[in-house]
Amino acid sequence: MADRPGPPGTAPSPDRPAADSDPIDAAIDDAGAVGFVAVGTRFDPDLRHLTRFRGPENEYAFVRVSGRSVVCAPGESVGRVKAEFDGEVAADRVGDPAGERAAAVLDEYAAGDTASAGGTVLVPPRIPHDAAVYLERAGYDLRSTAAVTEARATKSESEIDAIRAVQVAAAAAVREGERLLATADSAPDGELSREGRQLTVERLRRGTNAELARHGVTDADNTVVRASTGRDRTTGVGAAPASDRPLRPDEPITVAVAPRGPHGYYGSLARTLVVDSNGGWERRAYVAVESALDAALAAVEAGAVARAVGREADAELAAFGFDSDPESAGGAPPAPGHGVGLSRRERPSLDAGAELQAGNVVAVEPQVVDSDRGTVRLSALVAVTADGYERLGDGDPSFTPRE
Amino acid sequence: MADRPGPPGTAPSPDRPAADSDPIDAAIDDAGAVGFVAVGTRFDPDLRHLTRFRGPENEYAFVRVSGRSVVCAPGESVGRVKAEFDGEVAADRVGDPAGERAAAVLDEYAAGDTASAGGTVLVPPRIPHDAAVYLERAGYDLRSTAAVTEARATKSESEIDAIRAVQVAAAAAVREGERLLATADSAPDGELSREGRQLTVERLRRGTNAELARHGVTDADNTVVRASTGRDRTTGVGAAPASDRPLRPDEPITVAVAPRGPHGYYGSLARTLVVDSNGGWERRAYVAVESALDAALAAVEAGAVARAVGREADAELAAFGFDSDPESAGGAPPAPGHGVGLSRRERPSLDAGAELQAGNVVAVEPQVVDSDRGTVRLSALVAVTADGYERLGDGDPSFTPRE
Repeated sequence: MADRPGPPGTAPSPDRPAADSDPIDAAIDDAGAVGFVAVGTRFDPDLRHLTRFRGPENEYAFVRVSGRSVVCAPGESVGRVKAEFDGEVAADRVGDPAGERAAAVLDEYAAGDTASAGGTVLVPPRIPHDAAVYLERAGYDLRSTAAVTEARATKSESEIDAIRAVQVAAAAAVREGERLLATADSAPDGELSREGRQLTVERLRRGTNAELARHGVTDADNTVVRASTGRDRTTGVGAAPASDRPLRPDEPITVAVAPRGPHGYYGSLARTLVVDSNGGWERRAYVAVESALDAALAAVEAGAVARAVGREADAELAAFGFDSDPESAGGAPPAPGHGVGLSRRERPSLDAGAELQAGNVVAVEPQVVDSDRGTVRLSALVAVTADGYERLGDGDPSFTPRE
Repeated sequence: MADRPGPPGTAPSPDRPAADSDPIDAAIDDAGAVGFVAVGTRFDPDLRHLTRFRGPENEYAFVRVSGRSVVCAPGESVGRVKAEFDGEVAADRVGDPAGERAAAVLDEYAAGDTASAGGTVLVPPRIPHDAAVYLERAGYDLRSTAAVTEARATKSESEIDAIRAVQVAAAAAVREGERLLATADSAPDGELSREGRQLTVERLRRGTNAELARHGVTDADNTVVRASTGRDRTTGVGAAPASDRPLRPDEPITVAVAPRGPHGYYGSLARTLVVDSNGGWERRAYVAVESALDAALAAVEAGAVARAVGREADAELAAFGFDSDPESAGGAPPAPGHGVGLSRRERPSLDAGAELQAGNVVAVEPQVVDSDRGTVRLSALVAVTADGYERLGDGDPSFTPRE
């Protein structure tokens, strides 16, 4: 019932990372383009990267032209945009489509450079179609660019600080889930309970999310508690109806979180725990996954091929006699890891052929899935460095839950 | 520290609302179109409405053609889509753009109806441009439709049940914020504290969000605590850095939440509280806002013009000598209310000229803003009925915080 004190020793809120228009300007120069336009809502991670503010709920536009950065925003949001965005702000009239306003900004600011409106404008491939049509009608040729997505894959120091701060909250929340399991009672009927009530999948998910909230980050609807034993396996996902299936002491229970912090950056952490293992399959799987995580991390450094990191994990699992994912319900096997930033999953994927670069932040997350026995999973979040990696704030895992 | 028991008397999780393809089929018929295509990520409320599942993080497509509903999803998501989506599922090959796959589905399923590929395809106006280009290259003419957005504005009974359930959580969370204020200590220096530590804007925001988590809904990064007295006013928004400004007993403190529940529907609730008012401006403003809320609600019924509801609120505020928002930092004044559903704000807006329809769900939220003295705000969430409204789960407000 108490709103308990904030976590002792929590680092102060990291500074907001700065916007960096160099990659956009370089792409504009390379293409001989007039400018760059992105359009979207606050959920667009490219726009967040370009503007460093959360954006209005309605559609808005970012325009880069002649060395200026301009945000076109709905009238009712202009005050807030001005308070948070370092560039210029152009208010949309009510009902003005963002794409139309962006075209007007291009016309106005590119006028000194070109005899008349027109020329090439770079856009992200997924710019809303209506905005693209407005720009084309205004006389611009659109060419798609991946410059922002690529720029996002390599983090600055302040971006890494922001991710580390979220990851500290992620670790505390998973640790709280662990504590709830460690201090649960085992009933004779093989079910866990706390304070006289069943400890269900959903109750553990809620307890984990409350800890994220207490640390000032949002669960972002990403928290998953998975209890998986044979046919009885079940998942409590934010999006699915509450699962009132009681947890059992002898089954692998996975708690996975991917919260989002105040600057928009995600953390990522997954751990499997067994309250009272008989030391059989799940213990062997855990040792294999632990070893696979170590092997994968040992392969992380700038210049390593991303896929090779994932393969190290798979090879180690195979050495222990486990496939990484023999049958994943009809879909392709999940990647053994992925980039983390303003999207929960972004470049680089650890099953892609690109080389890792210093400043990539990747979640390495080997797992063993057995349709009868369950899932065992561990993860680490690391920033790639020239000769290895720096682990970001996620502490040590434990097979048996600790108080 | 305890994970406290779930709220007593909480209703069971409401059922997932069903997908309804009638409005899309009607739009297809009206336009003489081959079919309908929407493309987006899990953040797209139109797709959530059409498919009733949360969708993968990567882009996916929904295709309605010849009476069939087909989801095209990335390979690794297919298992989950099949488990949650009632229609057909087409797996993308790795790297396949969703728009290309959607064009292939159209080609395949429309074949019986047309001599060759081609014809008109309806799309939402903001379909990603690259998807639109794939469809056009495949020979389809695109025509934009607002059918989904319009269908979303009128809720079914099960949608209203889902919103009511979230609103119960919203009310509990605001009530928890109220309780934290009511049980705070007032220091001689005019600052609130709890358990020996300052009660700051951010601490109150975190406590409110923890209560949302305990009720199984996500704060969706929308919770705002605003303490506004003169120059000192400050806001703790999810997206902004933590505000460590201590709250004071004599100032209006607004707690506003817009959490999202397991089926994707939002709630919406805002209340201003004053711990120890001297009975001056803020008390008068509160009485005016309370009266404005009553006046606005009295105007709500099917057939009423949406804007007229907002004007009732404004007129009542004016009768008490208050403007609704004399100076809102350079932007247009906020609307006095808006629809709530799979988006936090959607149709109908209470400053638009449309008529309210039975099944609209609207947040009515009058406020008084004074740049020196602060903001006073109240809200109610209601479902519009033939002859009035049904209030959805948000209890009674109080000017003075209750324990």
